[in-house]
Amino acid sequence: MSKFEKKDLKKKSENISDWYNDLVLKSELADYGPVKGTMIIRPYGYAIWENAQKILDGMFKSDGVQNAYFPLFIPYSLLEKEKEHVKGFAPELALVTVAGGEKLAEPLAIRPTSETIMYEMYSKWINSWRDLPLKINQWNNVVRWEKRTYLFLRTSEFLWQEGHCAHATHQESLDMTLKALNWYKTTYEDYYAMATVVGTKSESEKFAGAEKTFTVESLMPDGKALQACTSHDLGQNFSKPQDISFQDKDGKKEFVWQNSWGFSTRSIGGLILTHGDDNGLIVPPKLAPIKAVIIPILGKNDEHVLGYCDKLKKQIEKVPSEFPGKIEVWDESTETYGRKINKAELKGIPVKITIGNNELSDKSVSMNPRLDLGPIMAKFLDSSEKVESLLKEIQNTLYSNSKKFLEENTHEVSSYDEFKEVMNTTRGFIKAFWCEDPDCEKKIKEETKASTRCLPLNSKEQKGECVYCKKPAKHVWYFAQAY
Amino acid sequence: MSKFEKKDLKKKSENISDWYNDLVLKSELADYGPVKGTMIIRPYGYAIWENAQKILDGMFKSDGVQNAYFPLFIPYSLLEKEKEHVKGFAPELALVTVAGGEKLAEPLAIRPTSETIMYEMYSKWINSWRDLPLKINQWNNVVRWEKRTYLFLRTSEFLWQEGHCAHATHQESLDMTLKALNWYKTTYEDYYAMATVVGTKSESEKFAGAEKTFTVESLMPDGKALQACTSHDLGQNFSKPQDISFQDKDGKKEFVWQNSWGFSTRSIGGLILTHGDDNGLIVPPKLAPIKAVIIPILGKNDEHVLGYCDKLKKQIEKVPSEFPGKIEVWDESTETYGRKINKAELKGIPVKITIGNNELSDKSVSMNPRLDLGPIMAKFLDSSEKVESLLKEIQNTLYSNSKKFLEENTHEVSSYDEFKEVMNTTRGFIKAFWCEDPDCEKKIKEETKASTRCLPLNSKEQKGECVYCKKPAKHVWYFAQAY
Repeated sequence: MSKFEKKDLKKKSENISDWYNDLVLKSELADYGPVKGTMIIRPYGYAIWENAQKILDGMFKSDGVQNAYFPLFIPYSLLEKEKEHVKGFAPELALVTVAGGEKLAEPLAIRPTSETIMYEMYSKWINSWRDLPLKINQWNNVVRWEKRTYLFLRTSEFLWQEGHCAHATHQESLDMTLKALNWYKTTYEDYYAMATVVGTKSESEKFAGAEKTFTVESLMPDGKALQACTSHDLGQNFSKPQDISFQDKDGKKEFVWQNSWGFSTRSIGGLILTHGDDNGLIVPPKLAPIKAVIIPILGKNDEHVLGYCDKLKKQIEKVPSEFPGKIEVWDESTETYGRKINKAELKGIPVKITIGNNELSDKSVSMNPRLDLGPIMAKFLDSSEKVESLLKEIQNTLYSNSKKFLEENTHEVSSYDEFKEVMNTTRGFIKAFWCEDPDCEKKIKEETKASTRCLPLNSKEQKGECVYCKKPAKHVWYFAQAY
Repeated sequence: MSKFEKKDLKKKSENISDWYNDLVLKSELADYGPVKGTMIIRPYGYAIWENAQKILDGMFKSDGVQNAYFPLFIPYSLLEKEKEHVKGFAPELALVTVAGGEKLAEPLAIRPTSETIMYEMYSKWINSWRDLPLKINQWNNVVRWEKRTYLFLRTSEFLWQEGHCAHATHQESLDMTLKALNWYKTTYEDYYAMATVVGTKSESEKFAGAEKTFTVESLMPDGKALQACTSHDLGQNFSKPQDISFQDKDGKKEFVWQNSWGFSTRSIGGLILTHGDDNGLIVPPKLAPIKAVIIPILGKNDEHVLGYCDKLKKQIEKVPSEFPGKIEVWDESTETYGRKINKAELKGIPVKITIGNNELSDKSVSMNPRLDLGPIMAKFLDSSEKVESLLKEIQNTLYSNSKKFLEENTHEVSSYDEFKEVMNTTRGFIKAFWCEDPDCEKKIKEETKASTRCLPLNSKEQKGECVYCKKPAKHVWYFAQAY
C-alpha cells in the first residue's frame, strides 16, 4: 500500500486534468461511485463542505432566510409549467418510472433544481402581502445526468443549497438576488481565497426560466473560467404560470416577484484547482478540517517527545481561533516520519509542526507552512499566536496569489485576431466589446471555444465596436473557455 | 384567512389521527407534496430537525464518527449482493429507468438505505487493520415507496442519518451498535422528552440483512407503539458477499464486522403525538426553534409597551442559556392579541410572555408556560433566570408525563385472554412470556394486531410459559400495536 506516497502524484504543471483526478483520489477528498457520473464525497472532502455550509448558513439565517425541505420527486407535468425551464432541463433529467413494484402513470423527475415544486407550494402558502417576503433555502442533493464525471466539477448528482424568495416588488426581489450574489462573492474571496469576477450572464447563457442571471466567475490555473455559482432574477416568469399571487394592501391581486440562487460542491473543485500544487492540496485555513498537524520525530526519548506533542496541542488550543479546523497529533509509531510529512502535504494541511529532541530540549516548536514561507521557529509559549498568525498569512497569501493570477491573465483585446491568439496560447479572461447579438457569441464559441462569461456589475456604457462583427457595441464583456 | 384559528383544530381526545394531520398542517410543521406519499418539511418543522441534528452530530463527532456523502443511485445488482437485504427492500423501491434521454441498461434504485453502496466502497478502502475502525455517517434523504402518507411517520421520502461502521472484531462492532443505541435513547429522553423502552427485535421484526436489530420504542397516547429508531449488528452478513476484508497484524485475511444505525424525521411525528394537546403542539424546550415569545397588549401607550418588549428580549438574551431557541417579539399591529396567543399555543412555544400597561408600570413580566403550570409573574431583572428555570421545568415535566404514561400503560399479562382484553380496550405495552416461535408471534399479530416490540436489554432469563402456545418460554417480551 502506498496510499500517501506523493511521489506517484501526477504533476500539475504537466497535465492539470490528470493531476486533478489523481490528487482528488489520493488526498481522499472523493472517489468515483459505482454508477457512471456519480461520486462519493469522502470524510475529508465533506468536512470542507461542512465548513462552507456553516459560513453560508450563518449568512442566510442572519438575513431571515429559513431552511426547509421539499421532495426529491417532481411530477413531469409540474416541470412543464415554465416552458423555458423544462426545455433547459429536459435533456439532463433522471426519471423514475417504476415504484413500489408498479409502473407509474406519470414519470417522476428527480429534481435538477426545485423552482417548480417549491413554487407549487408557494402558490398555496402565499395569499396576502403579509405572507411576503417568503425566503426559504434548502440544503439538498440534485441530479443532472452526466456521463463524463469530473470529480466535484461535473457529476450527475451534486450537493448544494438553493435559496428561493418571493417578494411584493421587482426591486425587492432584485435586491435579494444581489444580496445572495454578494454572500457568494464574500464566501469565495474571504474563505475559499479565490479571486472572482462578478456580473450578469448573456441571454444565451442565463438560467432556463430566469429574467436575468448573475454569476460569480473565477479563473483556473489552466486559463479556463469556472462558473462558481449563480443567482437568478426570475421576474414573474414562474409566478404567472404557477399562479403565485397575493392581495396587496389595497386588496388588488398581484403576482409575486421571485429569485433563486445556488452554491454547490463544485466550489470544492475550484478550490483544488486554484490552490493545489505538485505536492498536493492546499486548503485555505478558513475551510481546513485540520488546520495544523503535529508530527513527532521518533527515535530516542519517544515518550518525552510524544508528551511534548500533546502538551503543545493543548497549548495551541488554549487561545480562541478564527479558524475552525482541528489540531491533530500524528503519533502512530508504525508509520514513518517521511510518510506523515507527505500525507500532510498531500492533504494540504496549512501548518505542519515537527517535534524532535531539539525542540524538546529548547522548549521550541518548528513550523512548516504548506506555502513556502520558509521554516519558522517559535517558543512553546508563543506557539498559539504563531500558528494563528501563520494561518492568517497563508489565507491572505492564497487570496493575493489568486487575485494576481486573475489580473495577469485578463487580456483586453481590440481585434478578433488578438482574441484568437490569446485563446490559442495562454487563454485566461478576455475583455472585449461585444454587440450582444447571439450570432456573434455563437460564432466566437465555435471558432475559439470561448463563451461569454459575464458583463461585470456596474459596467459603464461605452462606445466601441464588436470584436467579431465590428458593429457598434456598448459594453466590454468577459470571455473565456470554461469548465 | 384563518391560518392560526385554533378553534377549528380537531380534538386529540376525539380522533387522534385527524387531530394529528390537522395540527401538522395548521402549525405549519409540514405539508403534503404534489406526489402521493411525499411531504414538505416547512421551516418550523425543519428548525426542530436542525436542533435534533446538532445534538446527534455532536455525539457522533465526539466519538470520531465522520460525515460523508454517498450517491443516491444504487445499481440494482449491488442491492442483490445480500439476499435478505434485497428481499426486504425490493417491494418499496423507486427505480430510475430513463436518464439523460436514454433508457438505462440497468435500473437504478433510489437508496432506501445505503449499506450496499457504502460497503462497495468500504471493500475498496479497507485493506489493513490500520484502516479500522472505519466510522462514517451520512445525513441524507432516502426513499421507501408508500402510498398512504402519514406526515413525518410514514412518507415515501424521509430525512435521516445513517451511521455505518466497520471493525476488526465482533465485540467492537457490538459495542458500537450499543453506543449508537444509547445516543438515540439519550436524545429521545433528554431532548425529545419521550420515555422509551430499549431492546432487541425478534427474528421476524429485525432489519433485512442484520444479525440482530436493537430498537428504541416509545408509546403514543393512543396506546400504540412507535419504533423510534434502530441500530443493527450486521455481523459479517455484508462483508462476506461484498468482500470487505483486511489483513490483520499477523498478515491473515479477515472479514470486517459491521453495524449500521439510523435516526429519522419520524422522530418529529413521535414528538407531536406525545406532547401535543387540544390547543396545539408542545415543543420540548431543548428542541424548540422559538423558546419564548413576547406578545404586547396594544391599545394605549403602544410605543412604550413595544419599547419595553424589546428591552425585555435583550434582558432575557443576556444570560447564556442551555436552550437553543430564539426569543421573538410579535409586534405586528394588524394582528390581534387573541390570534397571537392562539398562534403561540398552536405552535407549542414553551413560554408566552405578555406585556401590557400593568407590566410596564410595575417593571414586571407575565409569563404563561405552554404547560399548565399556572401564570407566573417576575420582575424585569429576574426575567432571564425565570425563563430559564421555566424552560427546565417544562422540559422535565414533559418527560415525567411521558414516563408516567408509559408506565401506567404497560401491562403484565399471564394469559392470552388478558392479552386480548388489553388490546381490545386501552392498548399500551403488554409484557408477556413468548416462546420465540415465529408461528406464535404471527398468530398473535393476526388475532390482536399486536406485534413483538422488543426484548428489553439486560432481560434476565426466567421460567415461564408462552402466552399463546403455553410451551416453555424463557423471556418476557414487549408487545403492542404499532405505528
